[in-house]
Amino acid sequence: MTNRNIRVEETEGMAVEDEHVEIVERKGIGHPDSICDGVAEAVSRALAQTYLDRFGKPLHFNTDETQLVAGTAAPAFGGGEMLEPIYLLIVGRATKEYDGERIPAETIALRTAREYLDETFPYLDVGSDIVIDVKLGEGSGDLQDVFGEDGEAVPMANDTSYGVGHAPLTETEQIVYNTEHKLTTEYAADNPVVGQDVKVMGKREDDHIDVTVAVAMVDEHVASLEAYQEAVAGVKEYIEGLATEYTDHDVTVHVNTADDYEQGSIYLTTTGLSAEQGDDGSVGRGNRANGLITPNRPMSMEATSGKNPINHIGKIYNLLSTDIAEAVAADVEGLRQVQIRLLSQIGRPIDQPHVADAKVVTSEDVTLEDIRSDIEATIDEELADVTDLTRRVIDGELSTF
Amino acid sequence: MTNRNIRVEETEGMAVEDEHVEIVERKGIGHPDSICDGVAEAVSRALAQTYLDRFGKPLHFNTDETQLVAGTAAPAFGGGEMLEPIYLLIVGRATKEYDGERIPAETIALRTAREYLDETFPYLDVGSDIVIDVKLGEGSGDLQDVFGEDGEAVPMANDTSYGVGHAPLTETEQIVYNTEHKLTTEYAADNPVVGQDVKVMGKREDDHIDVTVAVAMVDEHVASLEAYQEAVAGVKEYIEGLATEYTDHDVTVHVNTADDYEQGSIYLTTTGLSAEQGDDGSVGRGNRANGLITPNRPMSMEATSGKNPINHIGKIYNLLSTDIAEAVAADVEGLRQVQIRLLSQIGRPIDQPHVADAKVVTSEDVTLEDIRSDIEATIDEELADVTDLTRRVIDGELSTF
Amino acid sequence: MTNRNIRVEETEGMAVEDEHVEIVERKGIGHPDSICDGVAEAVSRALAQTYLDRFGKPLHFNTDETQLVAGTAAPAFGGGEMLEPIYLLIVGRATKEYDGERIPAETIALRTAREYLDETFPYLDVGSDIVIDVKLGEGSGDLQDVFGEDGEAVPMANDTSYGVGHAPLTETEQIVYNTEHKLTTEYAADNPVVGQDVKVMGKREDDHIDVTVAVAMVDEHVASLEAYQEAVAGVKEYIEGLATEYTDHDVTVHVNTADDYEQGSIYLTTTGLSAEQGDDGSVGRGNRANGLITPNRPMSMEATSGKNPINHIGKIYNLLSTDIAEAVAADVEGLRQVQIRLLSQIGRPIDQPHVADAKVVTSEDVTLEDIRSDIEATIDEELADVTDLTRRVIDGELSTF
Amino acid sequence: MTNRNIRVEETEGMAVEDEHVEIVERKGIGHPDSICDGVAEAVSRALAQTYLDRFGKPLHFNTDETQLVAGTAAPAFGGGEMLEPIYLLIVGRATKEYDGERIPAETIALRTAREYLDETFPYLDVGSDIVIDVKLGEGSGDLQDVFGEDGEAVPMANDTSYGVGHAPLTETEQIVYNTEHKLTTEYAADNPVVGQDVKVMGKREDDHIDVTVAVAMVDEHVASLEAYQEAVAGVKEYIEGLATEYTDHDVTVHVNTADDYEQGSIYLTTTGLSAEQGDDGSVGRGNRANGLITPNRPMSMEATSGKNPINHIGKIYNLLSTDIAEAVAADVEGLRQVQIRLLSQIGRPIDQPHVADAKVVTSEDVTLEDIRSDIEATIDEELADVTDLTRRVIDGELSTF
Repeated sequence: MTNRNIRVEETEGMAVEDEHVEIVERKGIGHPDSICDGVAEAVSRALAQTYLDRFGKPLHFNTDETQLVAGTAAPAFGGGEMLEPIYLLIVGRATKEYDGERIPAETIALRTAREYLDETFPYLDVGSDIVIDVKLGEGSGDLQDVFGEDGEAVPMANDTSYGVGHAPLTETEQIVYNTEHKLTTEYAADNPVVGQDVKVMGKREDDHIDVTVAVAMVDEHVASLEAYQEAVAGVKEYIEGLATEYTDHDVTVHVNTADDYEQGSIYLTTTGLSAEQGDDGSVGRGNRANGLITPNRPMSMEATSGKNPINHIGKIYNLLSTDIAEAVAADVEGLRQVQIRLLSQIGRPIDQPHVADAKVVTSEDVTLEDIRSDIEATIDEELADVTDLTRRVIDGELSTF
Repeated sequence: MTNRNIRVEETEGMAVEDEHVEIVERKGIGHPDSICDGVAEAVSRALAQTYLDRFGKPLHFNTDETQLVAGTAAPAFGGGEMLEPIYLLIVGRATKEYDGERIPAETIALRTAREYLDETFPYLDVGSDIVIDVKLGEGSGDLQDVFGEDGEAVPMANDTSYGVGHAPLTETEQIVYNTEHKLTTEYAADNPVVGQDVKVMGKREDDHIDVTVAVAMVDEHVASLEAYQEAVAGVKEYIEGLATEYTDHDVTVHVNTADDYEQGSIYLTTTGLSAEQGDDGSVGRGNRANGLITPNRPMSMEATSGKNPINHIGKIYNLLSTDIAEAVAADVEGLRQVQIRLLSQIGRPIDQPHVADAKVVTSEDVTLEDIRSDIEATIDEELADVTDLTRRVIDGELSTF
Repeated sequence: MTNRNIRVEETEGMAVEDEHVEIVERKGIGHPDSICDGVAEAVSRALAQTYLDRFGKPLHFNTDETQLVAGTAAPAFGGGEMLEPIYLLIVGRATKEYDGERIPAETIALRTAREYLDETFPYLDVGSDIVIDVKLGEGSGDLQDVFGEDGEAVPMANDTSYGVGHAPLTETEQIVYNTEHKLTTEYAADNPVVGQDVKVMGKREDDHIDVTVAVAMVDEHVASLEAYQEAVAGVKEYIEGLATEYTDHDVTVHVNTADDYEQGSIYLTTTGLSAEQGDDGSVGRGNRANGLITPNRPMSMEATSGKNPINHIGKIYNLLSTDIAEAVAADVEGLRQVQIRLLSQIGRPIDQPHVADAKVVTSEDVTLEDIRSDIEATIDEELADVTDLTRRVIDGELSTF
Repeated sequence: MTNRNIRVEETEGMAVEDEHVEIVERKGIGHPDSICDGVAEAVSRALAQTYLDRFGKPLHFNTDETQLVAGTAAPAFGGGEMLEPIYLLIVGRATKEYDGERIPAETIALRTAREYLDETFPYLDVGSDIVIDVKLGEGSGDLQDVFGEDGEAVPMANDTSYGVGHAPLTETEQIVYNTEHKLTTEYAADNPVVGQDVKVMGKREDDHIDVTVAVAMVDEHVASLEAYQEAVAGVKEYIEGLATEYTDHDVTVHVNTADDYEQGSIYLTTTGLSAEQGDDGSVGRGNRANGLITPNRPMSMEATSGKNPINHIGKIYNLLSTDIAEAVAADVEGLRQVQIRLLSQIGRPIDQPHVADAKVVTSEDVTLEDIRSDIEATIDEELADVTDLTRRVIDGELSTF
């Protein structure tokens, strides 16, 4: 083996799939916290790419502190309007001068945020419905050149930090993730009434799964209360169908349960976003790097979105541990569950963690020793390839929320 | 005569055209103060129109406090870039709720400002080069209905205030006004190197006129220092030609005299605006309602742009006094100069000023008594038609700066 | 004579005191525009002093763009409260780095503003009732050293600009100025019910003077509507007495005439400031450098407060022209009115204006020739001493609004 | 038993104290994230108290979104200075009008934040070193009256949410918590060189504990590099001593290991806070409700600070689960570790969770059955007393970070 300090052991306790109660949550792409995550990560990628383009190497930045202040809206059947804009403040650090040249970090941030919001939220009129402001302090200069001429060099860890990831997803996790994802893409394409702010809570108690979904309906596509009720019913039916792809358990779907038709209180929005009225948000408060909130599993508090993907060890190890877990789950047969935890040591190359431990639940007829070396080999390979992860983050191939 | 308190008398002293030293200034449409004036007035018109459309009558607002904080730019031959955005804060009051309906004053303000800037400043990338924010407080409800069903009603003055205007423009005034206006329209259309920020100072000493012009050149149309010098020479030649249309005096034209070619210090910009680098601005600090700053003439301190044109007497009387002066100068022969001053009285209809006085310099062979009644008649007629002025302001037919 | 280009001539037309209608206005120290002027000028002084203390010479700055956004208040008999804070944004440029040392321009601005507001407005709880924010861009470095080791050097004019001043004040001007000044100092000391926001409009028609005063009453000192009415009556009586010190004309005093007791609409405030509810403000929109708005006289549009007093020629010439006029009025007998106008020329020492003209109305039995040389001598002396004016501005001895 | 759905079972797997690797982190009270937590919670308490005082019952609010943007500082031996202020934006919702009365939510927030910062951070000059701004939207009115006349009523859960807590703390957890706590209180009282921003990372590998501490030293109490080194040595010695109170394991203490004396790079600050230079922060990104970050344990993503403690079930259940765990650990003998998880059900009283499960590791000679009923009784009692927790939060008796 290498100096990667890989340690593989059996999970104490049972697989999450076997626990009595399992809770899983996903804040959709249009949730106020996710809006912040998305903007922060888009700005981060744009800055990284700018540094690479202009200087052939990354420079220091972190843009992981976007804050959203909700607006005020007056949704109405057939189409309402925003009254007071959402306010989005992009906060962070960036290198603004290097080698005698100045870098337009703030205008890049503004342009990137605008483009991201324009592309992602079709019912939001950027510039009227949302004010985008920026406060980027001066970053502290040089980073090691990881994409240098003499081949790639592995940067040193900038901190003592850790990351944790797991695979494969449980059935409940799959349902929760895909409910949001498919609703806001596939289903919304045919049903424009569905906005981008979809929040999903999954709860499994033994063999029964409850999926509770809050969907922001878009008022211009809702002519009346009846139309709204039909839209809700449509979503419910769609999710019920979708769930059967992932589980044989009984699934009960609840959509917009906080509605009170008699009071006229329904989840109607002008922009498809709860940020239009009263829901604030910020980076790192929502989904973990794998897109889920999973209280049955260890989680990192690290805000992954917006951090620089070159040497910010918290970001890299959270994405990498998930990546490794998925690779192990894909490559090694006989596994029911694997959890990867990476612990860095300041000043050592990031491909050589202080500890890289895997906790495994094997299939019934497999022992850990049958597959230990396969697992170790996969982990080793993935760690060796860590700079590839940085590149994929910059290219936008990895989601951080 | 009526109860309009019209008083016509001869000017004490000489016509401005006869004074030894005359100074005239115009801050062009892209000057930081004028940007604020322009946005404030555009927002004001949009709000007035919204109230008329939704309620059939105007409601209270004043948006005359826009503040611009300059950005940072790195202009360069062939095209540079903005580094840090300009920040524009739209400030004022608006009625946000009326008759149980809410009015989206803030999103209207943002949309209007964006559209105004987009149309007016072709080199400014709104949303990246400039952040637009808004703080509109709650206005205080009802205004008298001036466009009511039962014919138009004249509103009552809301304050003791006054306005002052004059006509015709002196030769120096005409040169200053038209230098800026034609440079940024006619000339810029053929010469995109000329930005929208053009500042003109005219100084006449007896028979000699100096025209000092500062023109923001647009870097993407300037390949080199030589090209810059050619652009400056082109502007100089154009203005020299233009000036002969307005005067027979000798005119000396100075363009971008603060340049220092040896130091490499020239007036090069990325956006055509000095606001991109270091020049802040706000409403009411620049041109008076007639588009000029004329220290040889009485001026009002009132910030005209952004005020509501229904009952804000300071705005109305400044625009109206200029309007009346121009009408008198046009309609009555034998006049060399007329100055109109209107003084309001709180609580009286605005077509019945406390004082409306005209100070006149007649032509050599004309006495005041020859033309007094003509002048009074014109003033009377114009005052009677005051609500028409409100309508023209809302329709954007009258410039306020 | 010297190369100061001093030109003394008789005023065309009559003295302002002889005109039929005279209008004079003063926005008191607590008016929203004056708050901005006061903060801008205090910050300007603090920066100038810091540069002198640290580097022995002034550096570039201009802080003349403060913007105030009004708050919301709920005044009540016996004492109400602020609901939403006033927002004050200090805008400008300052040198933040010199000779390898960094200068804390922004924290100086914040501290100075806080101290100024604390001292000036006893009913304003700085930090709760008002949010102070700051955006100071980078200034452009060096200024000529006017207080150097080798004796003082006169800086060069940075622009083509002008200033205008006059003396002595007319009776109406004296009444307007002193009404505000004494009400907010002498009278308020004994009558804490009087707030700092006092606006005075004086109008003389031939021999009759109307003084219209709006006084923000402080709610914690007003127990009831009766108490309010007594407070109003007290102010009225005080001003009536005060006016007799300055004129023999009949004077009618109007206090808080917009009140409507039946509607319960009175001018009651929690902080003594109209900025607490709906009145925005900014620098340079209110009083001219002599503390008054005088439409019967030529005025400069220049915002004097907050500009640097070392080489900003607009600021210096506005203050200096008033200073010179006062000196001439004080030193030379036989004058009824003198107006000084100074016109700069870029690149020439500021003590050598392009034109320094005095327009004079002599006393009945005096001709201009009797006193011309005295006037010229006084002007010459004052111009020679221009750097002393800079020092007095930095020391806070000269008011700019 | 009751309808509280209490379920007690053995922990799958081992006690955290027995795991090979344990990681524990605490961000000190002056960490940028904790500053935000502290302000948000202080504002929350002040609003709750205001509503109780004025209306006898709580109204809706959540102030859990404070954002901090770092400033710029120039620390120096003997005392440096802040150059650009920290910017703190308080974000959230509050009820601003109730029963015809307006509530000054924003000025309360500003005053509370200022007082909190003044008391907590002795080296921070509030108002100059930090700008505090506020954007509180309108909250949505009524909450159930939990402190009513007819005895206390238990509110209904407003969401499906959960909380998790554990007790007792492991040795590493105790060391980490107390290192920060005692350094910034007891030790700092005698050693003013120690600032309030202390970050502690504890890592136990089997029997060895590493404690890594970053302490912001206060420059006015550091005369030289030698003095700095002494201060670091003093802190190290203090923590080494302190650690022996909590463990018999070997403990290695690392203080300010990122320093590079040769490069002159040390952790010197003017305010005792890293927020003065480059470290941004926001609510909910740091410590969990028990003051620690414990990746070996299940954690909730919920931002506890700033939420309303009346019916915000995420806040209440996170605090309550910790409270219950501590009560169980204190009251029931024979326990090595207990973890409490509470899961709410929308619309049911919060003292009747959907699930309340306890996972227990018993002492060697004790079985779960020996103590099950004691555990259940304690849980039941604590749940029954849930409104007392709300009261303690409002009174500031419970820390949320």
